[in-house]
Amino acid sequence: MTTELRVAMIGHGFMGAAHSVGWRQAPAAFDLPLAPRMAVLAGRDAAKAAESAQRWGWTESSDDWRTVIERDDIDLVDIVTPGDTHAEIAIAALAAGKHVLCEKPLANSVAEAEAMAETAADAATRGVRAMVGFTYRRVPAVTLLRDLIAQGRIGTVRQVRASYRQDWLADPESPMTWRLDKDRAGSGALGDIGAHVVDMVQFVTGQNVTQVSGILETLVTERPLMGTSVGLGGIAGDGRGTVTVDDLALFTGRLDSGVLASFEATRFATGRKNALDLEISGDAGALHWSLEDLNVLNHYDATADSALQGFTRILVTEPEHPYVSGWWPSGHMLGYEHGFSHQVKDLVEAIASGTDPQPTFTDGLRVQRVLDAVERSGANGSAWMGV
Amino acid sequence: MTTELRVAMIGHGFMGAAHSVGWRQAPAAFDLPLAPRMAVLAGRDAAKAAESAQRWGWTESSDDWRTVIERDDIDLVDIVTPGDTHAEIAIAALAAGKHVLCEKPLANSVAEAEAMAETAADAATRGVRAMVGFTYRRVPAVTLLRDLIAQGRIGTVRQVRASYRQDWLADPESPMTWRLDKDRAGSGALGDIGAHVVDMVQFVTGQNVTQVSGILETLVTERPLMGTSVGLGGIAGDGRGTVTVDDLALFTGRLDSGVLASFEATRFATGRKNALDLEISGDAGALHWSLEDLNVLNHYDATADSALQGFTRILVTEPEHPYVSGWWPSGHMLGYEHGFSHQVKDLVEAIASGTDPQPTFTDGLRVQRVLDAVERSGANGSAWMGV
Amino acid sequence: MTTELRVAMIGHGFMGAAHSVGWRQAPAAFDLPLAPRMAVLAGRDAAKAAESAQRWGWTESSDDWRTVIERDDIDLVDIVTPGDTHAEIAIAALAAGKHVLCEKPLANSVAEAEAMAETAADAATRGVRAMVGFTYRRVPAVTLLRDLIAQGRIGTVRQVRASYRQDWLADPESPMTWRLDKDRAGSGALGDIGAHVVDMVQFVTGQNVTQVSGILETLVTERPLMGTSVGLGGIAGDGRGTVTVDDLALFTGRLDSGVLASFEATRFATGRKNALDLEISGDAGALHWSLEDLNVLNHYDATADSALQGFTRILVTEPEHPYVSGWWPSGHMLGYEHGFSHQVKDLVEAIASGTDPQPTFTDGLRVQRVLDAVERSGANGSAWMGV
Amino acid sequence: MTTELRVAMIGHGFMGAAHSVGWRQAPAAFDLPLAPRMAVLAGRDAAKAAESAQRWGWTESSDDWRTVIERDDIDLVDIVTPGDTHAEIAIAALAAGKHVLCEKPLANSVAEAEAMAETAADAATRGVRAMVGFTYRRVPAVTLLRDLIAQGRIGTVRQVRASYRQDWLADPESPMTWRLDKDRAGSGALGDIGAHVVDMVQFVTGQNVTQVSGILETLVTERPLMGTSVGLGGIAGDGRGTVTVDDLALFTGRLDSGVLASFEATRFATGRKNALDLEISGDAGALHWSLEDLNVLNHYDATADSALQGFTRILVTEPEHPYVSGWWPSGHMLGYEHGFSHQVKDLVEAIASGTDPQPTFTDGLRVQRVLDAVERSGANGSAWMGV
Repeated sequence: MTTELRVAMIGHGFMGAAHSVGWRQAPAAFDLPLAPRMAVLAGRDAAKAAESAQRWGWTESSDDWRTVIERDDIDLVDIVTPGDTHAEIAIAALAAGKHVLCEKPLANSVAEAEAMAETAADAATRGVRAMVGFTYRRVPAVTLLRDLIAQGRIGTVRQVRASYRQDWLADPESPMTWRLDKDRAGSGALGDIGAHVVDMVQFVTGQNVTQVSGILETLVTERPLMGTSVGLGGIAGDGRGTVTVDDLALFTGRLDSGVLASFEATRFATGRKNALDLEISGDAGALHWSLEDLNVLNHYDATADSALQGFTRILVTEPEHPYVSGWWPSGHMLGYEHGFSHQVKDLVEAIASGTDPQPTFTDGLRVQRVLDAVERSGANGSAWMGV
Repeated sequence: MTTELRVAMIGHGFMGAAHSVGWRQAPAAFDLPLAPRMAVLAGRDAAKAAESAQRWGWTESSDDWRTVIERDDIDLVDIVTPGDTHAEIAIAALAAGKHVLCEKPLANSVAEAEAMAETAADAATRGVRAMVGFTYRRVPAVTLLRDLIAQGRIGTVRQVRASYRQDWLADPESPMTWRLDKDRAGSGALGDIGAHVVDMVQFVTGQNVTQVSGILETLVTERPLMGTSVGLGGIAGDGRGTVTVDDLALFTGRLDSGVLASFEATRFATGRKNALDLEISGDAGALHWSLEDLNVLNHYDATADSALQGFTRILVTEPEHPYVSGWWPSGHMLGYEHGFSHQVKDLVEAIASGTDPQPTFTDGLRVQRVLDAVERSGANGSAWMGV
Repeated sequence: MTTELRVAMIGHGFMGAAHSVGWRQAPAAFDLPLAPRMAVLAGRDAAKAAESAQRWGWTESSDDWRTVIERDDIDLVDIVTPGDTHAEIAIAALAAGKHVLCEKPLANSVAEAEAMAETAADAATRGVRAMVGFTYRRVPAVTLLRDLIAQGRIGTVRQVRASYRQDWLADPESPMTWRLDKDRAGSGALGDIGAHVVDMVQFVTGQNVTQVSGILETLVTERPLMGTSVGLGGIAGDGRGTVTVDDLALFTGRLDSGVLASFEATRFATGRKNALDLEISGDAGALHWSLEDLNVLNHYDATADSALQGFTRILVTEPEHPYVSGWWPSGHMLGYEHGFSHQVKDLVEAIASGTDPQPTFTDGLRVQRVLDAVERSGANGSAWMGV
Repeated sequence: MTTELRVAMIGHGFMGAAHSVGWRQAPAAFDLPLAPRMAVLAGRDAAKAAESAQRWGWTESSDDWRTVIERDDIDLVDIVTPGDTHAEIAIAALAAGKHVLCEKPLANSVAEAEAMAETAADAATRGVRAMVGFTYRRVPAVTLLRDLIAQGRIGTVRQVRASYRQDWLADPESPMTWRLDKDRAGSGALGDIGAHVVDMVQFVTGQNVTQVSGILETLVTERPLMGTSVGLGGIAGDGRGTVTVDDLALFTGRLDSGVLASFEATRFATGRKNALDLEISGDAGALHWSLEDLNVLNHYDATADSALQGFTRILVTEPEHPYVSGWWPSGHMLGYEHGFSHQVKDLVEAIASGTDPQPTFTDGLRVQRVLDAVERSGANGSAWMGV
């Protein structure tokens, strides 16, 4: 009989739905060494937490996360609350001896992230594991991209481009949301989607960003207050508010090897709904991936017959591709939420094998430090700042 | 408290995995009027059935489908066995007063399909519902495509192209499988993937195929016997066998309105893994969809400003698109298995509202009759045959 | 000093403009063994011929092609008149000892084409050369496609798909033109654009179509008479006329090797302006080319590392690609009319070397015979007809 | 009888070939108010100049440009020599009362460009015209892009992205060329291809870049010396040399309106042969164009029916599109060199109508000043520099 891994999830917004899919689906798709049990869902509002728990398949619900993380019958705490609460919950859960999965960004500040990383490192010495949820690493095409770089398939990396473009603020009359308020959100496009591309560049190259120069820009500084919230945006109400976060972040980073990487994070790229693009150029080839073409990896092999070179559009749905054998036959597409199942798989396997799951809190901290350096550079006329 | 809908699934191959996702995910994504319970999974081998049941979340398992469909605590029977067993199980289940969801193709012969459609029509008079599982109808981009035609957005339909291309037989040394044996599979590319495109053309145009002319071809007639099965194919063993089904079907159909539709179903389109393409041309526009670009619908509006006309690449991930509001924000991709959740949603809603779910067994029969007419045409020098 | 090749062009419609580009540009792009001189342009209307001659760079003009082809100072006659006049002019020119370049289709009937091919074969014995102008063979990506098949890069050809889709008749109120009148045009989509795909399939596979089954369809049988002609279409005038040619041709052909090839030629593919697509599937790979992406060849290598297979998008603008070294650096696009320069290059080189230029009149005749067989099949309920 | 415009071209490298196409083709494609005559081609080596003249259709050749520009029978001087000679020739030609077309970049230094712009402004007062050759402005899709912005089709411009990526230096053993020597080339990727994107951004937005922050990087600082030159690169010889120009330029600019534009110019984007991309985001839509898909403009209309929004792939080959009516029917592709014919058309029309052709030398100077500011910023830790 497989040992159970009893999970409590704290929070139940959009990310709670996505994490729930991961916990529900991973055991059906993969042979896991531990059997996850969706034990408790905790949220501030008891009725709403109960409703979410029932809908998503959690056995119980609670309105008190502090009690939940102390329960003896809980092995792992999955944190999907807003970023300003991550540090408190994660540190408490680790202290209580629970494994922790914490949604990105690790925290809203470097100081909090440092405390979390330190606690996690300490917990690891006692066999308690912590992981931060950058799920895009686990899109099969992205994992394959990383693997091909690691195998030297594109030779020495020479240049990196990373951008994440959305457009939900392109309309200047689109209303205020908490995401546009620095006190609550920490930052704007930079922390929300810029964090993803920073993590992915570090992940796929195996290198850290060591220095940055950049600019943060608020393109529309005043917006109508929110009337009714719909998806990421909503319908305008009365009155107007001030946008206190960045709409657009443009920056250049230098990696360990000295290579330059260009970054863009924007909410004003009209028509680009969720356009995360990576392109890594090496002296023996190149790799390109786009989130809007999730299952495809484009590979250029500069060592091939010169008359036949070009970008090869690899449909990353073959059994030999990362994670794919758990799913469908060749050519059957995976979607956004599969990354959450892959995250569960990797996390459970790491716990069972007594190793640290990736990305660690230290990896999450590293991303926060890069974002912080970008903010400092922006505040100093784009001067280069060490990370 | 929502009334339960207790489900038994008969069969547990690849389609069983996909149907299980639908039953697990639909209640989390949508507000359903009945609460599905994954009660029993039945399969011939007790141990294997038990293993599948545990893995996919079914409460019980059984090795005797006949007993299962008679149980009072079962409301719906979901049939995912091979096509040659559909008729017997479905007719028995309907006779036992259970709603039935039957995976496509409805049956391996027109005669069986006729019996099933007749039984289903009779059952419907007693409030017992039957549905055949052409899930590609429920890809949001396909449903939108159908809706736009129905709204007259492309005017009068003038021409239809439909193809389904795979390549898993392109290698002549790829071994025999049961799918290449006419006795077991009924037909080859025609019945397996041609059935999908016939159903989709009838679905999106709202018209039936009334006449056909075509050819079936076996490109490689002798293959190594199967050693070890992997995915749809496998590794060759000793000896050779004879392929008795078609590898390729090419046919032209005439629709109710007189419009010609061209069809292709092939397992020899090297490099095309799961390339189902539809293009519908009207006198006011056109629509194109490709399964390998699942979330995209291409729409040409011939009434737009002439200097700005072109195919618009609609990312069908907006909340106003069919089924999407149950899932993720704009730009977050859906995959192959979402169609199974949408199928559960529509089936459960139809049962709750006392209406016939679509597609009906009569729709499934209609597809069988088209395939049968293609076989007759092929056997008669491509002469036109009435459906 | 390079010997001159003195050219007379008969006709000056759209094709005259394109051929003139070829004669003007080829000597600047390539080292030719003979120096073409654009000597005389002949047309029925003296003033219009003079105007075209001046505009396009022909030294003289004439309103009498019969006189022109007899002139001692003319070496080659380039025929760009409508198809119903090709036979008379070409046969007379060959009889006068002039080399002939004749625009496709070779003729409007098989009988005419046979006479032309016979005359050309006879002329060849006297060193007089004849070529038919299927310029799409000379798009670098198409020539490369042919070369790769010939080199065995995709192994044994298993299936062929060819389609040519336009949309200038999609609007049912688009007026009559001479192209819709069988007496003048011979046939509709079949002869106009179907001829291209038949030639290309025979060219790239190196095989002939031996049998066909198909259907021709007129989708809109009555249209307004033409008021003012614009491009291929125009503005409706008073009264209505009857369309006597096919709008759509769908047919299947069998090649020498037994392989099936599917063909489509349509003027009703709304939104497809000039969409000629070829896909050749072999047991070791596949090749796909689209005229709307002129400079790109897509190549699938089924022998590559299985995790890295996919269609490679080759930008056919490298110096080692066919014809490209005469033009621009890597990545600089070629357009429609470059094929006419390549045609001149190949024709001039064949004349200089005393060999028969490709495609010969016999190749043109072969295409006519295929089209004729399609018409016969269409008239006989899609029965298979030998070519 | 149309008045002649007698042209002398100075220089005969790759750009000479391209300009010659323009002079040869424009009169055949368009009704020009003056009749260009390709009178003289001048080059330093008499024999080579004579050979180029004959090949490209120039009546005479000369090895002394100074004499040529003084000739009474020359009306216009077309300069296609390397950038370090532009100032001297252009200023002398304008002084001699000749119209001037000068290939980009206008000069290798701001000082030279200033002198040229001043001279041109002065000449204009005497009816002598000067134009700088940024031909990419005249790709029909680019002109259309500019027109749509000017018409307000995408509303207020909010963000601009521009990149020009090539890969001919990606191989670190690719040899030295004069383009890698600062003394001769002035700068590297920045001046060569960065100049294009700066001009295009200013052209399509109708705004100037007023401030910049950026970095220049040499990725490979030492390379083998050139053995044999082939295309832009070549085959390595003995010994090694030092690269003294930038391989990569990354910068951000601020436009008149305050909008940020990101720029990239690189010769290390493996697999990208000539990838010039523009994306302009406005609050009512967006436009995207890529040189590798020359004839296509992608347009997003944010005011369209929300369920049908997406990027529309406009094939810019319709008669109503800029410049297209001179060429072929709908769907027939144009290539790289068509821009040179369009340049001749616009230049000749401006001269005939007594107006200043666009872009002026002042426009060329403006580009130089932006490049200069980027160099200053790069040398000062990416600090923002006024243009």
